[in-house]
Amino acid sequence: MKITNLENVPRTEMTADGVFATFKQLPIGSADGAPNFSLRVFTLEPGGHTPYHAHPWEHENYVIAGEGAIRTENGEEHPIRAGDFALILPNEKHQFRNTSEHENLQFICLVPKEQE
Amino acid sequence: MKITNLENVPRTEMTADGVFATFKQLPIGSADGAPNFSLRVFTLEPGGHTPYHAHPWEHENYVIAGEGAIRTENGEEHPIRAGDFALILPNEKHQFRNTSEHENLQFICLVPKEQE
Repeated sequence: MKITNLENVPRTEMTADGVFATFKQLPIGSADGAPNFSLRVFTLEPGGHTPYHAHPWEHENYVIAGEGAIRTENGEEHPIRAGDFALILPNEKHQFRNTSEHENLQFICLVPKEQE
Repeated sequence: MKITNLENVPRTEMTADGVFATFKQLPIGSADGAPNFSLRVFTLEPGGHTPYHAHPWEHENYVIAGEGAIRTENGEEHPIRAGDFALILPNEKHQFRNTSEHENLQFICLVPKEQE
């Protein structure tokens, strides 16, 4: 069993193409013995975004704090806010965007552990 | 893609043996096309608890609100509070308890979709 708080989890800035002002933490992952899924937390500063991309695995999300949008396959932006859940299916194009000018957007993003 | 808020997700009271004052919601599950994992939310009223049991699949947890404890295999109670993450490995005996007298304990509990 592992119990931890985000305050105690190392945070790294993402540097991949298409990412801006986005930080990653991994409170539950394969190094903890997670058999199937890894639980990541992303923090997007105001104006921050993840890549606008698709991949053959799903995301399961919970918005911890802030507000923003998920840009979908057809370019539409669906607003999200603290307390929302999202399921992004395999191969659905998507992007997370922090649309706030002042607050961070922070959300859980679960993926198969091979993709953590 | 599915985006929803807990306010819009039906809530059912749990009636299994060893459960007290515990309500379940399923914001992301197999009916939504989740390929691998289902995301459930449990709300425990003051004094509420889940069964003290073990099973051959893991839990991945995030505490949304409140405070409580996870009782472990040897009977110890580890405090948990809003913002904490937990990984309960397959076959680890565990119980979630709301130790507050006034506030609900609410947490995410991920399981393989076959166990949702």
